[in-house]
Amino acid sequence: MASEQAHSDERADTYDEFESRVERISNIGNAAGILRWDQEVVMPEAGTPARAQQLSTLSSLSHELLTADETSDLLEALESDDLSDEQAAVVREIRRQYDRETSVPGELVENISETTTNAHPKWMEAKENNDFETFAPVLEELVELKREYANHIDPDADPYAVLFADYEPYIDLETAEKVLERLRDELVPLIDEIQASDTDLTTDAFAGTFDDDDQEALARDVLDSLGYDWDRGRLDTAPHPFSSGTQFDARVTTRFEEDDLLGSITSTIHEFGHANYTIGLPDEGYGTPLGEARDLSVHESQSRLWENHVGRSRPFWEHFLPIARERFAELEDVSPEAAYESANQVYDDNLIRVEADELTYHLHIVIRFEIERDLISGDLAVEDVPEVWNDKYEEYLGVRPETDAEGCLQDIHWSHGSFGYFPTYSLGSVLAAQLYAAAEEDLGEFDDQIREGEFDELNGWLRENIHQHGKQFTTPDLIERATGEGFTADYFLEYVESKYGELYDL
Amino acid sequence: MASEQAHSDERADTYDEFESRVERISNIGNAAGILRWDQEVVMPEAGTPARAQQLSTLSSLSHELLTADETSDLLEALESDDLSDEQAAVVREIRRQYDRETSVPGELVENISETTTNAHPKWMEAKENNDFETFAPVLEELVELKREYANHIDPDADPYAVLFADYEPYIDLETAEKVLERLRDELVPLIDEIQASDTDLTTDAFAGTFDDDDQEALARDVLDSLGYDWDRGRLDTAPHPFSSGTQFDARVTTRFEEDDLLGSITSTIHEFGHANYTIGLPDEGYGTPLGEARDLSVHESQSRLWENHVGRSRPFWEHFLPIARERFAELEDVSPEAAYESANQVYDDNLIRVEADELTYHLHIVIRFEIERDLISGDLAVEDVPEVWNDKYEEYLGVRPETDAEGCLQDIHWSHGSFGYFPTYSLGSVLAAQLYAAAEEDLGEFDDQIREGEFDELNGWLRENIHQHGKQFTTPDLIERATGEGFTADYFLEYVESKYGELYDL
Repeated sequence: MASEQAHSDERADTYDEFESRVERISNIGNAAGILRWDQEVVMPEAGTPARAQQLSTLSSLSHELLTADETSDLLEALESDDLSDEQAAVVREIRRQYDRETSVPGELVENISETTTNAHPKWMEAKENNDFETFAPVLEELVELKREYANHIDPDADPYAVLFADYEPYIDLETAEKVLERLRDELVPLIDEIQASDTDLTTDAFAGTFDDDDQEALARDVLDSLGYDWDRGRLDTAPHPFSSGTQFDARVTTRFEEDDLLGSITSTIHEFGHANYTIGLPDEGYGTPLGEARDLSVHESQSRLWENHVGRSRPFWEHFLPIARERFAELEDVSPEAAYESANQVYDDNLIRVEADELTYHLHIVIRFEIERDLISGDLAVEDVPEVWNDKYEEYLGVRPETDAEGCLQDIHWSHGSFGYFPTYSLGSVLAAQLYAAAEEDLGEFDDQIREGEFDELNGWLRENIHQHGKQFTTPDLIERATGEGFTADYFLEYVESKYGELYDL
Repeated sequence: MASEQAHSDERADTYDEFESRVERISNIGNAAGILRWDQEVVMPEAGTPARAQQLSTLSSLSHELLTADETSDLLEALESDDLSDEQAAVVREIRRQYDRETSVPGELVENISETTTNAHPKWMEAKENNDFETFAPVLEELVELKREYANHIDPDADPYAVLFADYEPYIDLETAEKVLERLRDELVPLIDEIQASDTDLTTDAFAGTFDDDDQEALARDVLDSLGYDWDRGRLDTAPHPFSSGTQFDARVTTRFEEDDLLGSITSTIHEFGHANYTIGLPDEGYGTPLGEARDLSVHESQSRLWENHVGRSRPFWEHFLPIARERFAELEDVSPEAAYESANQVYDDNLIRVEADELTYHLHIVIRFEIERDLISGDLAVEDVPEVWNDKYEEYLGVRPETDAEGCLQDIHWSHGSFGYFPTYSLGSVLAAQLYAAAEEDLGEFDDQIREGEFDELNGWLRENIHQHGKQFTTPDLIERATGEGFTADYFLEYVESKYGELYDL
């Protein structure tokens, strides 16, 4: 007994030491998060050189702590020991990070970092001058470096699958690919039908120009209405809206354009979904993966659930339009139905992903996915990207870009070397539908509550089934526990077929 | 020659390694500075627990890097080598920090940190209930801990001198003490004379209530007018105004009270002085002491120079009153002379340091200095502080506090364990006068320029003689180089005697 006790004490000590190390790494990351928020939102223009050095120092400190021999020793000691489920989850997550970060040589990491720093202005220049040639050489370089990077992590795996796992570690690429193929195969004909339909949807409910300050007041109304916890957050403006932070301090940013009131509302709801997930993470898990959000697909499921299933629903506009009218008298004659229709218009000539609707959006993603997968595998040469891009737009969306600026140069992501990131946007939407259906299965339809501006039950379900678990479960386990089944596109397709079938009289 | 070259290369490598380490420490400190700014200015209320952990992690990382054996080895290697003057200055500054931080046991540092955390609410409670007894035990504890702390750093030195050196490392306590004694001996009779004078100064030029938003606009006018570099800074509000940052990003905060327009103007000018010093530090020194401000007295000399020698001068109000009138029509009938007099009123019944004027201020400091010096030496018992405090107020300022809340409990500093900090406020004022006199000696009187709102020459002199040197010189050297003589109270006393002699017809 005495020796068992001693062993158990020793194990507790080892875990404590491990946890302290993990907490340090987490605190460094969260400090860097504040520095990045500051840089985007409040930092004076000239602050960049110092900020870059501060962030670089924090990033190396974190890397050194994670990849130190002590981390390895602690992981090994703990992996051969009896741990609680929570402890085992923390060990699993840190092991994964440790293995990835130690397998890539520092020189390659630096090389990638320098190349992306160099790629960004090239991309800007190429987009501005509509000249793909300016960007092509550095894109080529990044493709090669990222292939090399993937090869260090797992020489036996499909390199694109390795890159994808940087953003979505627990949904395998095959599953993701099947979902994306199904979206393509079912959405292309649905969109065709919609474009052929002669239903006359209201599209101009939010036409007009709207004062920035009033838009900001309305964005605060939106957040109030959805139940944003202002004690743990704040709203600011940023050129590219984002949300960031921890469960104690999860901030939202948005932007206002005078001719796009609807865009600022939906973007604010979207960022609310992200921040609300972060706020729902358990306080007591702060500092370890137990208090951190699951990865990009789950995060995006939260933003999309609020943006689309709530914010683009008929009962939401019945609830929210009277509030919006208080800020903007010009909405007096707009009906909730007109607002609902305008928020769900499917475009037939949009080339730009970030301006897409709930349906065509996914074809924008599928196109990027197919192209970057083939780029990484070597099946597609960089020089052929513009033509393949344009052909796919014509095939899937019935519209052909006239310039590369509004074609393959529109997004910033590849200049960051972020191959494998795009799919998580669609996976998030698909998961949002699955979670929303499961919540309604458990609690009944939310329409009446949404019409009354009552979001507590829905949010309570998300808190209980998703938020409070942090990273304790892998993504497939989390989905299985929340919905009773594996990850599936069924609910998303049912949702869009029913919603858009009704809207467009299909 | 070959071996000399090899030795020189090796020395360069050693210095580079040392510099990288120093830069890391500096970047961690600057990141923590942003986190603290964020906490005071924008952080949501509930963010405290996470922020405390983030700051604590950064603080230990910095401590570990500084006190590591590698630092010691590098310092020793470099100290026995030929270095440039700049390199030698960096080594001197880091050596000093290293010696201090390694001499105090971690346990004691933690004990002090915990005790101050505990002391703060006790001080708040004691002040609120006007009950010194609530604060006395923890003050006693802090006095003992700080004595112990000083003893670790230098067992042979006067412990108060050691504590003072935490804030002002290069002006020895004897010099400081002589200056403070001289202030006491010369200001007490001067203030007596002023109080006995029957001159009828205008004191109500800024009476009235003033809208917050307009006050903020005027604070921006003040900063514009003085030449604040907005590309490297910003203005926000905070409950206790401060400025912080680096040469790339030096921010100002201020506060607005509707019945204290003058206070918001002078406080903004004060913080401008601090931020303007920071902005003037050399960009290329960022990351080492060469790009950091000299210590508290020099920093305070910059804020006081702008606040008092510029902002409380007659020509300043001739320049600025018309600008203020644009924001506040109620100032239409106020003359520059009335504004000047109101900004320089000497109080005869003020008990509160932060509300004091340019003269009585220093007696508030002298009283705290004498008390804390005797507390640390053991010549004064904690329980006797209230009575000694009140006696000294009566003796030096002719006014006796009726409660401890407006007596010895008014300031937060002792609850932080900050003994030795207060004197730097007065030393800063004294140095401000010496620097201003030297600048006028070099360039002629600034009155005409100030009247025209022209501050470039004055600021240029400060940039050249103070700001650009960072921590390259010790404080006495810096003063000697800038003014041609040692630190002296002569100029401050001349300045106040001339200014207040004229104002009060003495």
